[in-house]
Amino acid sequence: MTSSNRQFQLARRPVGMVSREDFRYVEAPVPTPGDGEFLVRNEYLSLDPAMRGWMNEGKSYVPPVGIDEVMRAGAVGEVIASNHPKFAVGQKVVGMFGVQDYAVSDGKGAHAVDPKLAPLPVYLGTLGMPGMTAYFGLLEVGKPQPGDTVVVSGAAGAVGQIVGQIAKLKGCRVVGIAGGADKCRYVVEELGFDACIDYKQDDLKKALKQHCPKGVNVYFDNVGGDILDAVLTQLAMHARIVICGAISQYNNTTPVKGPSNYLSLLVNRATMQGMVVFDWADRYGEAMREMGGWLASGKLKTREDIAEGLEHFPETLQRLFKGENTGKLVLKI
Amino acid sequence: MTSSNRQFQLARRPVGMVSREDFRYVEAPVPTPGDGEFLVRNEYLSLDPAMRGWMNEGKSYVPPVGIDEVMRAGAVGEVIASNHPKFAVGQKVVGMFGVQDYAVSDGKGAHAVDPKLAPLPVYLGTLGMPGMTAYFGLLEVGKPQPGDTVVVSGAAGAVGQIVGQIAKLKGCRVVGIAGGADKCRYVVEELGFDACIDYKQDDLKKALKQHCPKGVNVYFDNVGGDILDAVLTQLAMHARIVICGAISQYNNTTPVKGPSNYLSLLVNRATMQGMVVFDWADRYGEAMREMGGWLASGKLKTREDIAEGLEHFPETLQRLFKGENTGKLVLKI
Repeated sequence: MTSSNRQFQLARRPVGMVSREDFRYVEAPVPTPGDGEFLVRNEYLSLDPAMRGWMNEGKSYVPPVGIDEVMRAGAVGEVIASNHPKFAVGQKVVGMFGVQDYAVSDGKGAHAVDPKLAPLPVYLGTLGMPGMTAYFGLLEVGKPQPGDTVVVSGAAGAVGQIVGQIAKLKGCRVVGIAGGADKCRYVVEELGFDACIDYKQDDLKKALKQHCPKGVNVYFDNVGGDILDAVLTQLAMHARIVICGAISQYNNTTPVKGPSNYLSLLVNRATMQGMVVFDWADRYGEAMREMGGWLASGKLKTREDIAEGLEHFPETLQRLFKGENTGKLVLKI
Repeated sequence: MTSSNRQFQLARRPVGMVSREDFRYVEAPVPTPGDGEFLVRNEYLSLDPAMRGWMNEGKSYVPPVGIDEVMRAGAVGEVIASNHPKFAVGQKVVGMFGVQDYAVSDGKGAHAVDPKLAPLPVYLGTLGMPGMTAYFGLLEVGKPQPGDTVVVSGAAGAVGQIVGQIAKLKGCRVVGIAGGADKCRYVVEELGFDACIDYKQDDLKKALKQHCPKGVNVYFDNVGGDILDAVLTQLAMHARIVICGAISQYNNTTPVKGPSNYLSLLVNRATMQGMVVFDWADRYGEAMREMGGWLASGKLKTREDIAEGLEHFPETLQRLFKGENTGKLVLKI
């Protein structure tokens, strides 16, 4: 056990793209768990698009991170001291432990994970929030039917890679949208999507028409902006659009670009519904079991993009917003 | 029976606000009904926001009106000649009879109405498409619950006036949005809405906060644009937004303004759903009976704004898009 706890605190509210200057690097004392608490040594940090929203002032689905507070992040690590009846020393645990080496937790929102069932980073991705988001967002909000055409943006990302594979398991035609030939190759050749549109190269509308000849029944949107607008022009009747995120808009210095083509919802009697995964918290167990089974049987593949070094946190977070990761981006401490 | 059939044909596709020059005034011969057809003399024409969309090129929920075709319009009139087994001379009928004095119909989409139950113009409004739109859009898409706060834009219009009154009948708090003090007075004092926001005078967001202290559970949107964007900032959790129309955008020469605040759908797990009334055609009878009952018992009030003279059709249509009507706008021939 080292004698200091390296942390990134939020130093100021970012304007536009996050930068190293938005954070303050601090070496704090390692905290001591009190009654009913445990101390965890983080091993992997989760880097998620939602983190950008948490850095903003104002009302959202969770309170913002306060200035001078440790930056909020999901993490997986090992319990190294415990006064908590349910968490024993040596256990691997996942929770919102923040961008730091060590965290004290009262166990709220934390749970033990089994490193024999899956490597630890998977508990931040496919068996973590992104996987839960994909599972419930697609199945409960998107409601895909066999034969439906499902389009997912951010297709090579933590959520998108899982959305597309679950849709395939449910008998759908799956078209990904991703940035770059490598990502497109990954989702088609390794994950088995039917097609992938490279939004940096292809004419989006034309490609959607080509790959979705019967229109789009379900669109799982992780990106917003022009891609959402293009998909809106290609909806099938009674289409369902899952609004999971809008990573293209999070670092804007101008107002969010609203979907100009939203009246396609009217023409096609379509639905656009927002989701936050926490609403299904009481069903995570169910999803974990099913997803775990798919992983074990090879029906579901998962990739993690693992960066190293807590000290590189700000630049690694930037990689996420620049779309440079393939699969779930985690930072190994 | 006069010897000529005055018509307005579509002369060109409008750019921006509709104008007289977009139409061609023609005096055609009065047509003769063939086998299985009847001839109707129109008495009232329906002026609807949707007409602007029908004048545009391109795919929508109905085909556009062709250049040189009689402008499409709902109308109510009297059968004056018939070779149709179900429509007798002297019957009053409603249907898509177009902007003209006389129309031949094969009966498709037409139905007889009873002038003793309600004045003829009401069959173009509250007991016609606008009423059906309000009824099914609110009840089937908006799904208001007793105690919900329901906001409706275009509150003094043909659809809005009915939406708000049905919501009141269902035990909701109802806040209208309309342009001008007279309209606001109408919906509050005559129709019994709880409040009305004058979007031309009031600070929309502030007024919404004031009148919807628990947030907006159902928003029935007839207008789009800035008003939709403002309401999005005031949603309650699990809010439902009914996209019925977007009259503020129909005469744009610039692209439709998409709702910048659409990510409020995510934060509030809210739904935005488009609707077209035709989907409930097999249930119009049910709605007519219930709405007819409410009208008869005085629980539902309806106002028609009646202009006169077929020759004034283009300018009367402009009044609609300038928001100058209160209640259902019809043109008496």
